[in-house]
Amino acid sequence: MPNARSITPPAFNPLTGAIRALAMDAVQKAKSGHPGAPMGMAEIAEVLWRRYLKHNPADPKWADRDRFVMSNGHGSMLLYALLHLTGYEVSIDDIKNFRQLHSKTPGHPEYGYTPGIETTTGPLGQGVTNAVGMAIAEKVLADTFNRPGHEIVDHRTWVFLGDGCLMEGISHEACSLAGTLGLGKLIAFYDDNNISIDGHVDGWFSDDTPKRFEAYGWQVIPDVQGHDAEAIDAAIREAIANTEQPTLICCKTIIGAGAPNKQDTHDVHGAPLGDAEIAAAREFIGWPHAPFEIPEDVRSVWNRREAGTAAQREWQQRFDAYAAAHPELAAEFRRRMAGTLPGGWVDHVENVIASVTAKAETIATRKASQNSIEAFAPALPELIGGSADLAGSNLTLWSGSKGVSREAGGNYLYYGVREFGMVAIANGIALHGGLIPYTATFLIFSDYARNAIRMAALMKQRQIFVFTHDSIGLGEDGPTHQPVEQAASLRLIPRLDVWRPCDTTETAVAWACAIERADGPSALLLSRQNLPFQSRDSAQVAAIRSGGYILSEAGNGAPQAVIIATGSEVTLAIEAQKTLAAKGVPVRVVSMPCCELFERQDAEWRDTVLPKGLPRVAVEAGSTTGWYKYVGLEGGVIGLDRFGESAPAGELFVTFGITADAVAAEVERVLG
Amino acid sequence: MPNARSITPPAFNPLTGAIRALAMDAVQKAKSGHPGAPMGMAEIAEVLWRRYLKHNPADPKWADRDRFVMSNGHGSMLLYALLHLTGYEVSIDDIKNFRQLHSKTPGHPEYGYTPGIETTTGPLGQGVTNAVGMAIAEKVLADTFNRPGHEIVDHRTWVFLGDGCLMEGISHEACSLAGTLGLGKLIAFYDDNNISIDGHVDGWFSDDTPKRFEAYGWQVIPDVQGHDAEAIDAAIREAIANTEQPTLICCKTIIGAGAPNKQDTHDVHGAPLGDAEIAAAREFIGWPHAPFEIPEDVRSVWNRREAGTAAQREWQQRFDAYAAAHPELAAEFRRRMAGTLPGGWVDHVENVIASVTAKAETIATRKASQNSIEAFAPALPELIGGSADLAGSNLTLWSGSKGVSREAGGNYLYYGVREFGMVAIANGIALHGGLIPYTATFLIFSDYARNAIRMAALMKQRQIFVFTHDSIGLGEDGPTHQPVEQAASLRLIPRLDVWRPCDTTETAVAWACAIERADGPSALLLSRQNLPFQSRDSAQVAAIRSGGYILSEAGNGAPQAVIIATGSEVTLAIEAQKTLAAKGVPVRVVSMPCCELFERQDAEWRDTVLPKGLPRVAVEAGSTTGWYKYVGLEGGVIGLDRFGESAPAGELFVTFGITADAVAAEVERVLG
Repeated sequence: MPNARSITPPAFNPLTGAIRALAMDAVQKAKSGHPGAPMGMAEIAEVLWRRYLKHNPADPKWADRDRFVMSNGHGSMLLYALLHLTGYEVSIDDIKNFRQLHSKTPGHPEYGYTPGIETTTGPLGQGVTNAVGMAIAEKVLADTFNRPGHEIVDHRTWVFLGDGCLMEGISHEACSLAGTLGLGKLIAFYDDNNISIDGHVDGWFSDDTPKRFEAYGWQVIPDVQGHDAEAIDAAIREAIANTEQPTLICCKTIIGAGAPNKQDTHDVHGAPLGDAEIAAAREFIGWPHAPFEIPEDVRSVWNRREAGTAAQREWQQRFDAYAAAHPELAAEFRRRMAGTLPGGWVDHVENVIASVTAKAETIATRKASQNSIEAFAPALPELIGGSADLAGSNLTLWSGSKGVSREAGGNYLYYGVREFGMVAIANGIALHGGLIPYTATFLIFSDYARNAIRMAALMKQRQIFVFTHDSIGLGEDGPTHQPVEQAASLRLIPRLDVWRPCDTTETAVAWACAIERADGPSALLLSRQNLPFQSRDSAQVAAIRSGGYILSEAGNGAPQAVIIATGSEVTLAIEAQKTLAAKGVPVRVVSMPCCELFERQDAEWRDTVLPKGLPRVAVEAGSTTGWYKYVGLEGGVIGLDRFGESAPAGELFVTFGITADAVAAEVERVLG
Repeated sequence: MPNARSITPPAFNPLTGAIRALAMDAVQKAKSGHPGAPMGMAEIAEVLWRRYLKHNPADPKWADRDRFVMSNGHGSMLLYALLHLTGYEVSIDDIKNFRQLHSKTPGHPEYGYTPGIETTTGPLGQGVTNAVGMAIAEKVLADTFNRPGHEIVDHRTWVFLGDGCLMEGISHEACSLAGTLGLGKLIAFYDDNNISIDGHVDGWFSDDTPKRFEAYGWQVIPDVQGHDAEAIDAAIREAIANTEQPTLICCKTIIGAGAPNKQDTHDVHGAPLGDAEIAAAREFIGWPHAPFEIPEDVRSVWNRREAGTAAQREWQQRFDAYAAAHPELAAEFRRRMAGTLPGGWVDHVENVIASVTAKAETIATRKASQNSIEAFAPALPELIGGSADLAGSNLTLWSGSKGVSREAGGNYLYYGVREFGMVAIANGIALHGGLIPYTATFLIFSDYARNAIRMAALMKQRQIFVFTHDSIGLGEDGPTHQPVEQAASLRLIPRLDVWRPCDTTETAVAWACAIERADGPSALLLSRQNLPFQSRDSAQVAAIRSGGYILSEAGNGAPQAVIIATGSEVTLAIEAQKTLAAKGVPVRVVSMPCCELFERQDAEWRDTVLPKGLPRVAVEAGSTTGWYKYVGLEGGVIGLDRFGESAPAGELFVTFGITADAVAAEVERVLG
């Protein structure tokens, strides 16, 4: 049985003692945090970080370092202790500031806050999924850049995970795909301590986890004594030896090991041990030192700066040899790992947009998106696409797409029906560096991936979300497939740019902006149905990059009102403008493909596009709430605040009153 | 190997021919839809629906019917064909109206639209998860109501599912828990046709599914020939015989079986076959009849009205015997299956609210929520709680909580770390009837469950979401755990009532309203931190049920402005009111615990609370966007449009400027 609990307790020593002491002392000082996982995984961490992990604390951004992910991110103090002890720029004062404002040691590991943190973890299951993405990135980049005798991309991805990660559905999505792709350099340690927050897991988690992972095609090393360094060492060697399959090392551990009275209970999971238990633990583990005091001899045995620098120097020599043999590849590798766009990008984009504009095609924006990919991808080999089993509907394949497989790299991932896993895997790809991922599903199923979208934004990662079938305009599939609140809801995620382009030109510009945006993700909301091309002069084309601009000025005098529209409803706004013009009411039409970008413009631009005092009506086939920010209490919004229905799209727009006539009538109502 | 493809093709007959013809003809007429699954699963459906499914087409609401869920909901025409052929109120004209506006046959099965549809499916993986909930409901109700010699609750839950459902992470969450709970009356058929939308699944889905489900503790019947009626029959018998484990019957099938040129390709998955292929299929399967024509002899063999009525009559006789022996239990069973609240409910609620108000406690609203459960649950035995491994944080346990286990029923589910699965399971529990589920996690992780929350609203199901740790007020756990956009984002879901109460009294009223709301779900957003009690007169207590009301009128003259606040920020509004009063500026404070309910009030109420023309400032520790609907372009919003930080909560409110002083200053700014 998977959870038979026969565990060899730790033979305490000063190396693991340092981890345990730092964890319990920091949590105690912060008055909150999780000592259980750091104390339970101390031996595993010591063996991995001192004997196997390829890293250089003096250069946390070394391109070919191993990636380490702590998927059970609540155990962050383990990671901070390891970073401190091995010599990263994480001082003992930083450790003392655990969980304090603007410290390097926040409650969960936060990417960008701390050198050596490869990804933000805490939302369970996403860390291991990021790790799958990192391992995919390594595989793809190795396939792209390595040459015979020059293995410049050759590193592993290591993951710690706990019961919580394994219960989360996303672990299924990610680990299933990892098995299919045979990610042999991915090695995960399962902290099998039999405890989650609600207590002993038997009542709600009785999976035979080894069997489950064998079913995914992983190598599983079961029943490893997680406090026995040599057993851990042997398991790691076995994992490394298998290059065809990812490996799960199942480690039996005692949560909070070292806390004599509280270990092996959920009391050590997420709360300070308390002074008495900490004193008892010091005695129990043989750690006589004061809080936050690490003896110099312990510190020097832990420190990896010298070893890491030597390892990196050895790699650098190999890279130099590679650069001598393959100078263009080496330059390209450097460019891509730096995340800079290729030379000539700006001109290329300008040409593409000019060509798209000249064609003036009336097509679905999902098709316009595919055309954009086709135009941009040849110039941008770091683009790596994918869809959650909707390639033919999302239109994410282009003529140069090559699927990543067990046997080879490529530039396209068939993610399967795994939306959440897809986006979190792509976060891992982006975090790894060297690749720009785009992912796709129906807009409605952005719901499934929502927290990973948020994580992309939180981590400032460049990922491009292709969300097609963006309204009731998808028609017959009905309310389960028709987004209503999704556009508005995505716009609420801080730092996410949400584009809803109205035609081919706006779609091309949206793609260009998304690619150029190095510090955050962008979502492209695209229609299933054809949308008419809108003509623009060159200033208007340029203005698309402002997020909101005057698409069509009132032709018959100073505008009395403004109609704001996005995507498929821009054409309704233009029609309403004509209707109103015929009645002698001049109105302006503002296209607002990206509200976030519009709000980043200066006040002068915003006031020019939306002059103060001019009545406004917004139209979008979705939730109305967010638009009151633009139209105010006196304006009007034509939209949809109820679920859709299954019917041909044209009927639905009429049934729900999202028509040019309704827009025109609303303008007249607002004008009083 | 799991996907070795050695398949016995169907021996076509008129019974399965009727299914195949209806499916391909309806899809063709609608010009969209999915013929593949209906044609591939025709034999499985015929054996199950004619030989085993306990149902009565003449009474689709018979309490002890078997539940049937088509988790691969895109294959809806299979279900419509079965409903039509077995005699439900689904006419041939309804079938002809497949995918048309307001028909009984929308693109995906929609609960409430069609007699015999037990749940809305389409978003993959959720159907099987609903089914797990239905099987849990059956188990719990059987445990509650059955007595020796009186098995009045004794039915099975059957599921059809495909590759897509199995790839989705939620299938892991649900099936893992189903195994742990030993749901012996749950039987699923896996339509193993090796095809998903992107093509043959081998490149992205190579799980050994039988092994995976064995790891969950299911009985697995592998390698069943899915077009061989006797093989299917034998598998079903084996499944029924095992009462200790759920069963997965793995059926090898040919997608679109019967379409001679397109079967076994993804071309049959989601598009009409076309006239030529349909003609060829008619020939191939020996079905010479015109579209939508079912010969009378075929129809009569299919019809189950007589058999179903007899079965129900037999059950009714047993129920009558039960009612004679246990009249109170029988009455209670009837009440609970009808979904009506117990007698004396209104008085009980009034007493609870009066008592809570008299106590005037300053506690966290999550604690107030637990007190509400403690007060209401004894009077409401249908309440079935649960949390995604956060019972001690969400405070969802009460003194009468009893965990549901493999061995016994109960009124509390330890869902494990499975937020999405939890909510979709609870949807299944609600759909089954007889129970009112409440579920819980941190508000931030409502993201994980988002589409299931939406499905609860779409299906008008009574589920109560307890979302605690509702803002940066949770402190040190940092931005991954601090909701920012979640309150606003939940408010966008149509038909979901979102409560953010400010104290014990509002929390108790929110609970009462959520329980009383029979036609939709309610979310309760609750604080981790203590919130001061607000005093109210009895009219104000009553007004909480209006969603928004005057909590504190300006004491020093007619109000010059209104401050609107929710939850933890109500106290800031009250403080700001005092500050402003001291400066001679009279302002009103409106507490708005539930915007949706406020908007359902008549205009007179709304205008009384928020008089036209009076400047307004809203304050909520979250996204500001949604509040402009109430404050307009000229008003102000104090909130948070960026991610949080890891630090003690008090510091965060100050750092992000969400303070009483900031509210007062904003009022002054708005007043100019």
